[in-house]
Amino acid sequence: MLGIDPGLACTGWGIVEQTGHVLRHLGHGQIRTTTADADHLRLDVIFRGITAVCDEFAPDAASIESVFVSKNPQSALKLGMARGVAMAACASQGLLLNEVAPRLAKKAVTGTGRADKKQMQAMVAHHLGITPKGADAADALGLAIAGLHHAANGALLDDRQARGGTGLAAAIAAALAKEDGKG
Amino acid sequence: MLGIDPGLACTGWGIVEQTGHVLRHLGHGQIRTTTADADHLRLDVIFRGITAVCDEFAPDAASIESVFVSKNPQSALKLGMARGVAMAACASQGLLLNEVAPRLAKKAVTGTGRADKKQMQAMVAHHLGITPKGADAADALGLAIAGLHHAANGALLDDRQARGGTGLAAAIAAALAKEDGKG
Repeated sequence: MLGIDPGLACTGWGIVEQTGHVLRHLGHGQIRTTTADADHLRLDVIFRGITAVCDEFAPDAASIESVFVSKNPQSALKLGMARGVAMAACASQGLLLNEVAPRLAKKAVTGTGRADKKQMQAMVAHHLGITPKGADAADALGLAIAGLHHAANGALLDDRQARGGTGLAAAIAAALAKEDGKG
Repeated sequence: MLGIDPGLACTGWGIVEQTGHVLRHLGHGQIRTTTADADHLRLDVIFRGITAVCDEFAPDAASIESVFVSKNPQSALKLGMARGVAMAACASQGLLLNEVAPRLAKKAVTGTGRADKKQMQAMVAHHLGITPKGADAADALGLAIAGLHHAANGALLDDRQARGGTGLAAAIAAALAKEDGKG
């Protein structure tokens, strides 16, 4: 599973493999671009970077944060450009793509949908037994872990109605529903 | 010159060639995607579509609207995704990319920076001697024409300071400055 945290300046990626219940870290990194280059060249770097990661690790699927809406349309447009290019690179490699809501990613990794960035990074390190280099790469690894949960449990993580289900995903869905009740 | 008017649902493209002062239409069309498909598959269709157009017409450069900022961050993100993919496709083909402000495109095609969509389409048809099929393709042809002006006149169209220049671009820049004075 390839996790991607896209951004025009820095796109994090991380590869996690699951065998039974065991998660294994295979690689991670950050694709950096420079403001000295025109946007289309920066986007090309992102496209080629994701493609190179796919060539090296041959993931079956990718996981990306579902639409995060910034209050600033200008930032949303820039993020959209990077996100679109990362998604197109995955599609061009024939990968399945999971879009994971930030809250569900937090829940899958830390046990709470309200974890902050530091908690996420600590739990990613705990699950994988490594200390990721770079916050965007750590986020990408978190998304990969969440994507594996999602894939292992069908659409459960996305379906808040499926509270009758069993296993981790159902427990996560139920816990999120409970948080909602409180919030 | 390839003009591109990107959108997730419909991306217009148009190819215009300039020999001396003569503009010639070589082709245009619209890349449509369906909401039935996941976003990454729709973006892949756009990437492949632009790549196919480049393969067929071998343009030297492309022209795209400079950042249009929607008031709605959600629309900005969607537009950004399509725009980013179109830009990355151009970069992967080694094309130069002009980003043309909507107002400069209008000025270059119709003579006024305040033309509406209908005026633009009528003048594109007039310049090229064809009636484009589809509003997005017509916009893309307009961007191609504006991009050719831009390319023929260096950075003048982008440089509002360069009012001492000669020729069409300087005239356009001067006229825009005048409009600004009135507005």
